[in-house]
Amino acid sequence: MGIRVAVAGASGYAGGELLRLVAGHPEFDLVAATAHRQAGHRVDVVHPQLTGLDLVLGGTDPATLTDADLVFLALPHGESAVLAAQIPPHVRVVDLGADHRLADPYDWAQYYGGPYAGQWTYGLPELPGQRELIAGSTRVANTGCYAAAITLALAPLIAAGAANPADVVVVAASGTSGAGRAAKAHLLASEVMGDLSPYRVGTHQHVPEIKQASGATGLSFTPVLAPMPRGILATVTAVPTHGVDPQHVLAQAYADAPFVHVLPEGRWPHTAATLGSNSCHLQATVDVDSGRLIVLSALDNLGKGAAGQAVQNANLMFGLPETTGLSVWGVAP
Amino acid sequence: MGIRVAVAGASGYAGGELLRLVAGHPEFDLVAATAHRQAGHRVDVVHPQLTGLDLVLGGTDPATLTDADLVFLALPHGESAVLAAQIPPHVRVVDLGADHRLADPYDWAQYYGGPYAGQWTYGLPELPGQRELIAGSTRVANTGCYAAAITLALAPLIAAGAANPADVVVVAASGTSGAGRAAKAHLLASEVMGDLSPYRVGTHQHVPEIKQASGATGLSFTPVLAPMPRGILATVTAVPTHGVDPQHVLAQAYADAPFVHVLPEGRWPHTAATLGSNSCHLQATVDVDSGRLIVLSALDNLGKGAAGQAVQNANLMFGLPETTGLSVWGVAP
Amino acid sequence: MGIRVAVAGASGYAGGELLRLVAGHPEFDLVAATAHRQAGHRVDVVHPQLTGLDLVLGGTDPATLTDADLVFLALPHGESAVLAAQIPPHVRVVDLGADHRLADPYDWAQYYGGPYAGQWTYGLPELPGQRELIAGSTRVANTGCYAAAITLALAPLIAAGAANPADVVVVAASGTSGAGRAAKAHLLASEVMGDLSPYRVGTHQHVPEIKQASGATGLSFTPVLAPMPRGILATVTAVPTHGVDPQHVLAQAYADAPFVHVLPEGRWPHTAATLGSNSCHLQATVDVDSGRLIVLSALDNLGKGAAGQAVQNANLMFGLPETTGLSVWGVAP
Amino acid sequence: MGIRVAVAGASGYAGGELLRLVAGHPEFDLVAATAHRQAGHRVDVVHPQLTGLDLVLGGTDPATLTDADLVFLALPHGESAVLAAQIPPHVRVVDLGADHRLADPYDWAQYYGGPYAGQWTYGLPELPGQRELIAGSTRVANTGCYAAAITLALAPLIAAGAANPADVVVVAASGTSGAGRAAKAHLLASEVMGDLSPYRVGTHQHVPEIKQASGATGLSFTPVLAPMPRGILATVTAVPTHGVDPQHVLAQAYADAPFVHVLPEGRWPHTAATLGSNSCHLQATVDVDSGRLIVLSALDNLGKGAAGQAVQNANLMFGLPETTGLSVWGVAP
Repeated sequence: MGIRVAVAGASGYAGGELLRLVAGHPEFDLVAATAHRQAGHRVDVVHPQLTGLDLVLGGTDPATLTDADLVFLALPHGESAVLAAQIPPHVRVVDLGADHRLADPYDWAQYYGGPYAGQWTYGLPELPGQRELIAGSTRVANTGCYAAAITLALAPLIAAGAANPADVVVVAASGTSGAGRAAKAHLLASEVMGDLSPYRVGTHQHVPEIKQASGATGLSFTPVLAPMPRGILATVTAVPTHGVDPQHVLAQAYADAPFVHVLPEGRWPHTAATLGSNSCHLQATVDVDSGRLIVLSALDNLGKGAAGQAVQNANLMFGLPETTGLSVWGVAP
Repeated sequence: MGIRVAVAGASGYAGGELLRLVAGHPEFDLVAATAHRQAGHRVDVVHPQLTGLDLVLGGTDPATLTDADLVFLALPHGESAVLAAQIPPHVRVVDLGADHRLADPYDWAQYYGGPYAGQWTYGLPELPGQRELIAGSTRVANTGCYAAAITLALAPLIAAGAANPADVVVVAASGTSGAGRAAKAHLLASEVMGDLSPYRVGTHQHVPEIKQASGATGLSFTPVLAPMPRGILATVTAVPTHGVDPQHVLAQAYADAPFVHVLPEGRWPHTAATLGSNSCHLQATVDVDSGRLIVLSALDNLGKGAAGQAVQNANLMFGLPETTGLSVWGVAP
Repeated sequence: MGIRVAVAGASGYAGGELLRLVAGHPEFDLVAATAHRQAGHRVDVVHPQLTGLDLVLGGTDPATLTDADLVFLALPHGESAVLAAQIPPHVRVVDLGADHRLADPYDWAQYYGGPYAGQWTYGLPELPGQRELIAGSTRVANTGCYAAAITLALAPLIAAGAANPADVVVVAASGTSGAGRAAKAHLLASEVMGDLSPYRVGTHQHVPEIKQASGATGLSFTPVLAPMPRGILATVTAVPTHGVDPQHVLAQAYADAPFVHVLPEGRWPHTAATLGSNSCHLQATVDVDSGRLIVLSALDNLGKGAAGQAVQNANLMFGLPETTGLSVWGVAP
Repeated sequence: MGIRVAVAGASGYAGGELLRLVAGHPEFDLVAATAHRQAGHRVDVVHPQLTGLDLVLGGTDPATLTDADLVFLALPHGESAVLAAQIPPHVRVVDLGADHRLADPYDWAQYYGGPYAGQWTYGLPELPGQRELIAGSTRVANTGCYAAAITLALAPLIAAGAANPADVVVVAASGTSGAGRAAKAHLLASEVMGDLSPYRVGTHQHVPEIKQASGATGLSFTPVLAPMPRGILATVTAVPTHGVDPQHVLAQAYADAPFVHVLPEGRWPHTAATLGSNSCHLQATVDVDSGRLIVLSALDNLGKGAAGQAVQNANLMFGLPETTGLSVWGVAP
């Protein structure tokens, strides 16, 4: 008998991807999935891609969740802390929301507001030493999707002294699933197709998480909504230290990471190559004109940026190989 | 040690999807992949979504292929027969091309031209008795993608006498991967995005296969290129026989088929729900105004329409459960 | 001084296109635009593509509209009749909604419900004699977008006895702007991109209008939502009469129509070629296998399918050349 | 009788947009259009959106072009100089290629190669004093599309001392029409839809033009291919000078520019709002975390980035109002 898994917030896009991964995971048994407005519906009414999955969404009720060995929380930011507090300590929890990511209560207050819920182990296994911390934790705060893409590109370079942490400029574009499933006019297909639109320029709420995880101390971050359902492409630039080869630093940092691929020279990351996978593709160069270091990072915001990452963390928490039930390879074209 | 598998024509879209499925299949060992112009390149240079797959494309050489237990041929129509003839009888072969599908040499001559290569077992396991025929074959002709979508919608209704085979009207739209990976100006993203364009209206080469497989005797088939990478949506209409419930006929026909889902009333098939899966979704109704029977069918042209179907056939040919290494669930959104 | 024009329902997609066309029209002065929830906003806040258009949306108030010489009503179906009744007879009105299209109160009751508002002159100038009727009218009911595409393809063939009106099968796909601008989850970009989804299969509310306008007596109509902002592609099939050349019938019918183009043999209509224009492209053939007549029709659902059509009608109502302020040519790619 | 206009390179995307604009221009008569491989075809075979335009493409022959009063050259980079040299001085020429943009032969040699053709008046009328220079010129080098978007965002800030020219970081994404109409595998719809892919990172050939036009002295420029046919969104960042309001600087610089719109606070430029227009939308802010200045710039790469810009320049060269035959408003959604 497998590990009993429940998914809270199962009606959203990250929730749907979690259901797909959990249902196909060889060691996990999907025992419950909960939602708010969609409670009472079969899963495949809410997620037609899961047609044949015989499960009805329950209400988001702590009792339902505590019967599991592992709970994924895929709730809107600010909603998971209260629920998490009601889950007994022996049940392992991975929170895909932002509630338990930030070390600094001031950052939480400034960008999210409401009570600060404290910090959990940060769920990015590829950071040095983090794999072991996650394996020893019963509570893990999954990375945000932008933070995952940017941190994987940047953290080893800052840690190695190869990039100046004080002057990091990032422009990152995301597919629309990153904006969630709530019906909003600016996310209508008619508005998005054929359009690139920046948002929250200069004040994005993920800035503190990105700085905390990557080591950047000065960060200009511009997010852009792109006309595609999934994928993040982050262009990360910084002033390099002379005499350090960024590609080499990245290759060393991820030599043993099954999901982070530093591409051979001449190939650039692009989002479609990561769709449906838990992989992140990286490539670095130094700009001929400005001498600035440019790192490109691509991943699936619902994969390595959310649900895949969460399953990878859960695998570690249960002593499973971290690749169990996850795909290195994307679905393309 | 697993079943040794080779893929010929591995540089195309169906070839890439085959590589993904074979590489992730628990009983298959991918031992060779061949191509023409791309021979000599690493697989992940040609298919970046397979980054990390450590294999170099070989030339399309019979010797390479005969070292395998199973060969998938994903070559352009008209190119597989010559190669297939050089593969020893004990090596099982699934041909994804059209070369061995048609029973009638005249149809081959009219729509494809060149020498007629004879007919192999038709690789659509959901047709009555076909699963057993495939299991007993060493040579299987995989369905075409349109034929799969339309035949699954239509064949049980014609077989049950629920639809008049002489007056079938089909309009089916396909994603662009169905048109292949050759660089053609009309397939450029600039041309396709935002566009629906019919093609080969009134004379499509898949008409004989569709008639042969579905039992239709009079077929009007209009294919349309749609602005998406994958997916086929077929709208199949016919004159129904009074007193027969089409939904019931379909539900009975596919009661034991793991990949064909007759949706509950109120839900309509749509392509995105099948992306990356080997599933086909069906729904039927009778038009209020005309009394005509309308069946909607959705599948992934590279999944149930090509590579997934081919793996399903191969599973049967080797006595494996037909779902091995395949996903019922799609990747969405 | 020009003709004073007001647009009611200016915050939707058809409303936005009307504003663009009216603002660029050499004989029209845009004097008022009204909306419900968006009243009080500048036009370019609601329609960023009209940045620089210096106008504030008013409330949907008859007084605002009666100050104009010409009013376009771009309101949801069922909302224009009440407003129209309050506009004085001397003000010319083009209603883009369905309220005044249907001749048969029973059809209205069955598909829309609510009080039947009576029938106005049908706004499809390319129907025989209709140009003159429109020119003599002060009230015109603009065509629906599907009805425009299908009727232009079909009406001359039925009128000429070239097609059997009793057995017409149509599958038509539309871009998402046809579904309006209200925030609905199934219209989110995440859901629509990469997806083809049929809807209201077998019971679409436009069936009575299409039959009334085209002369069809038996109609199977399946609409499909396509992943693009604009455009309709209709595949219209019918049983032909022997000895009649459908291309010739269509070419004759539209010899003097500036916006309807029967393409030369070998070219098929596709939607992108009509984007932003008031043109409809047509092509016909007879299916080799079934002998069925197939007519393809492409137009911009917001152009010839809505706002462009409305301006064409208004031009006729004011004695202007019908092409004034409209483009024959599309914006591509 | 109007100004006689010829378009060379009329079969590409910029050429097609030029034909549309010239054919609709009240003062221009389109007398000739030339192409290489497509010579001999009707224009509407090559550009179906121009169906009804009665013109046959001629060969790219100086004699054809010299019969005109105005010639637009929309040829691949490096091909226009030779042709331009054969056009008599009294014929006005706007070159949409790069051949006559660069002041420094060394830059030409480094990024393009081949003989340096000399510099023409730079065709960006919104630069200070440039409108008058263009009006007095018979030879104008149209801006590149990226250069237009970035220079409009940056030049006034550098000129006003509001931004440090030595540390400019730009990430800009373009729709696929910017990559041209040649059939290349990486531009296939199957590859592009759902994908963001960076290219020529660190060494793009437009860097010298952007620096020359904007005044930047140190520039990191990362271009990204986006899944849409048209549009450029440039994110331009620089270190600001304290005490200068960037929005105010931009607003002043473009107070009299009909096509450049500095948006009111709270609105961000996005590409779809500029489709089909000659407008550029701008907005600026200072990043809360890094203090870096961020300017967003959106335009249609075939409009203000190519054909629209070229017509605007030609209008000035002939003493016409610069807005003649151009639209401030975009086609959306």
